[in-house]
Amino acid sequence: MVVSESSLRSFTQNIFLAMGCSEEHAALAADVLLQADLRGIDSHGVARLVGYVRLWKKSRINSKPNITIVHETPTTATVDGDAGLGLVVAPFAMKLAIQKADQYGSGWVSVRNSNHFGIAGYHALMAVEKDMIGFAMTNASPLVAPTFSNERLLGTNPMCYAFPAGKYPPVVVDMATSAAANGKLEIAQRKGIHVPEGWIQDANGNFTTDPHALKNGGSLLPLGGDWEHGSHKGFGLSATVDILSAVLSGANYGPWVPPFVAFLEPSDDPVGLGIGHFVGAMRVDGFRPVEEFKTHMDNWIHRFKSASTTDPDQKVIIPGEPELEAEAERKENGIPIVDAVLVDLNGLAERFGIEKL
Amino acid sequence: MVVSESSLRSFTQNIFLAMGCSEEHAALAADVLLQADLRGIDSHGVARLVGYVRLWKKSRINSKPNITIVHETPTTATVDGDAGLGLVVAPFAMKLAIQKADQYGSGWVSVRNSNHFGIAGYHALMAVEKDMIGFAMTNASPLVAPTFSNERLLGTNPMCYAFPAGKYPPVVVDMATSAAANGKLEIAQRKGIHVPEGWIQDANGNFTTDPHALKNGGSLLPLGGDWEHGSHKGFGLSATVDILSAVLSGANYGPWVPPFVAFLEPSDDPVGLGIGHFVGAMRVDGFRPVEEFKTHMDNWIHRFKSASTTDPDQKVIIPGEPELEAEAERKENGIPIVDAVLVDLNGLAERFGIEKL
Repeated sequence: MVVSESSLRSFTQNIFLAMGCSEEHAALAADVLLQADLRGIDSHGVARLVGYVRLWKKSRINSKPNITIVHETPTTATVDGDAGLGLVVAPFAMKLAIQKADQYGSGWVSVRNSNHFGIAGYHALMAVEKDMIGFAMTNASPLVAPTFSNERLLGTNPMCYAFPAGKYPPVVVDMATSAAANGKLEIAQRKGIHVPEGWIQDANGNFTTDPHALKNGGSLLPLGGDWEHGSHKGFGLSATVDILSAVLSGANYGPWVPPFVAFLEPSDDPVGLGIGHFVGAMRVDGFRPVEEFKTHMDNWIHRFKSASTTDPDQKVIIPGEPELEAEAERKENGIPIVDAVLVDLNGLAERFGIEKL
Repeated sequence: MVVSESSLRSFTQNIFLAMGCSEEHAALAADVLLQADLRGIDSHGVARLVGYVRLWKKSRINSKPNITIVHETPTTATVDGDAGLGLVVAPFAMKLAIQKADQYGSGWVSVRNSNHFGIAGYHALMAVEKDMIGFAMTNASPLVAPTFSNERLLGTNPMCYAFPAGKYPPVVVDMATSAAANGKLEIAQRKGIHVPEGWIQDANGNFTTDPHALKNGGSLLPLGGDWEHGSHKGFGLSATVDILSAVLSGANYGPWVPPFVAFLEPSDDPVGLGIGHFVGAMRVDGFRPVEEFKTHMDNWIHRFKSASTTDPDQKVIIPGEPELEAEAERKENGIPIVDAVLVDLNGLAERFGIEKL
């Protein structure tokens, strides 16, 4: 089924309103999810709505959070999300970072007591709109094993760096620090196909191509796959995300991060509050005039787009480009919703007594 | 041959003095190189000394730079290295970042017109000493091809994140954003052994295990190896380093980055000045009290060190741990210098009329 952006947006907004979110929060949370769906990152869009509702039902998401700044300097802050939706907590933090950058050149906010924040790119792009460089990262439910271990201690912990350009669209590096995002695994599970070696290991720490291995005690591997191919680097990046998001803010880290799925209980011995994010903004003109920077960004993009390839069907893909193409196409033609997600969404509609899709 | 830290330090310092560096710069540059050798990162220590001298002979390194701040806000700055050694330019930039962080919570400095800065970890650790989180990255000579290309457009572009801990040593994530650092390839070349698939490709863009492929038009691959294993993420990280270090500062980026080896000429159509770095510092107590942070860092490290493993001979390695072990051992027992490097170093001693090793 294909749904128009506006229908899906008002549907999503109505679900958040039914959960008790304010008008402002419902609109914002819907905007974050819709941007994921528009940009083709289906695993992080409305497909997650049922997950948020389940966590809310278990009182693990607070739909009426009192988001506060608990610690601050001119350019740094720690925000407590009051167990709210990450979809509204992270934009609060990013606005604060942008405000600090506006005044002092840069702003950095670590966030505790939050929940899943959607796509990192949404938050980083808030800075880009102001001619700033945007940073956004978050820790997540433990699914990834560090190099040489068979224990799930880290999330797919994405990091995002977003840069404004001139005539070209922004460069947006938005990536899980695992070899593959969990969404890709779910697709393979649904299709019943094998995954490449180097994505996952079984419970004994051996490479496997079985996408169901995760359910049987297996784990995702850090970017790089194994040590020989640099998985200690993927582990190091994931550790960086975990420390900046949670050790710095006072959120849970490592294996203590509360699971996204409501049927798994959070640790009864937490080391912090909720999950953690880290966002930042730096004014481009804190370094050089904006127009100069943008001219060189365009030159950078142009040069990489014209890189030679050996396969005539392939070209160098600028980070952020595929998402932008998806957005243009889906704004025009609507957003495809797979059957399983449609069933979930209409189930929510029924429960809350709102109009189905 | 094994040389004591103090002999190697004064030898190195004498070489820099002979190049015309000030006492202060010679001592600092030697300190950066020695830290690489002590920490076991032999490819970035005194082995590079002959390379620096060759660039200086060709007037591509200025031994008496007038390093200046060319653009500034309270928490950001752009520094022009005046074609000086990156070994002295990057510490200048980091000191400035630390000073800004001291006053405003965080400080960020982009650097143009510089040269190879040694190990990123040295600079990031300057912040850690002040109970700050340190960031350091640099672009480098083009050797790495973006995903789907067979053209060398990026350097091994390392990024480093360094975090203070309590009873444990700092966590230092210091990594090339390519699948393998060039140094590892050089070792394989010397030993005449093959390298794993996923490190390099030949001139036609096919995986090869021949470590000499780089000389024949091949290229290093981004972290991940190929697209299926996330090389677009390695490319994205490398792009991030390139943009923050050079597009932001006004240095050369991408294929325009001047080569480290003196026998290759820099582009006659540069897009900026020299190579670029990006460094930053954030005060831990800009987010939460230092002791709280350190207690949780210790807990984080302890938990990851105790992670289960399936191979009893392996354990999870905390980023920075192997380097620290090397440092303790080499401070005690001296620094091993391979024959080829010893010949180079004593050649320099002869040329400059200083005492040989």
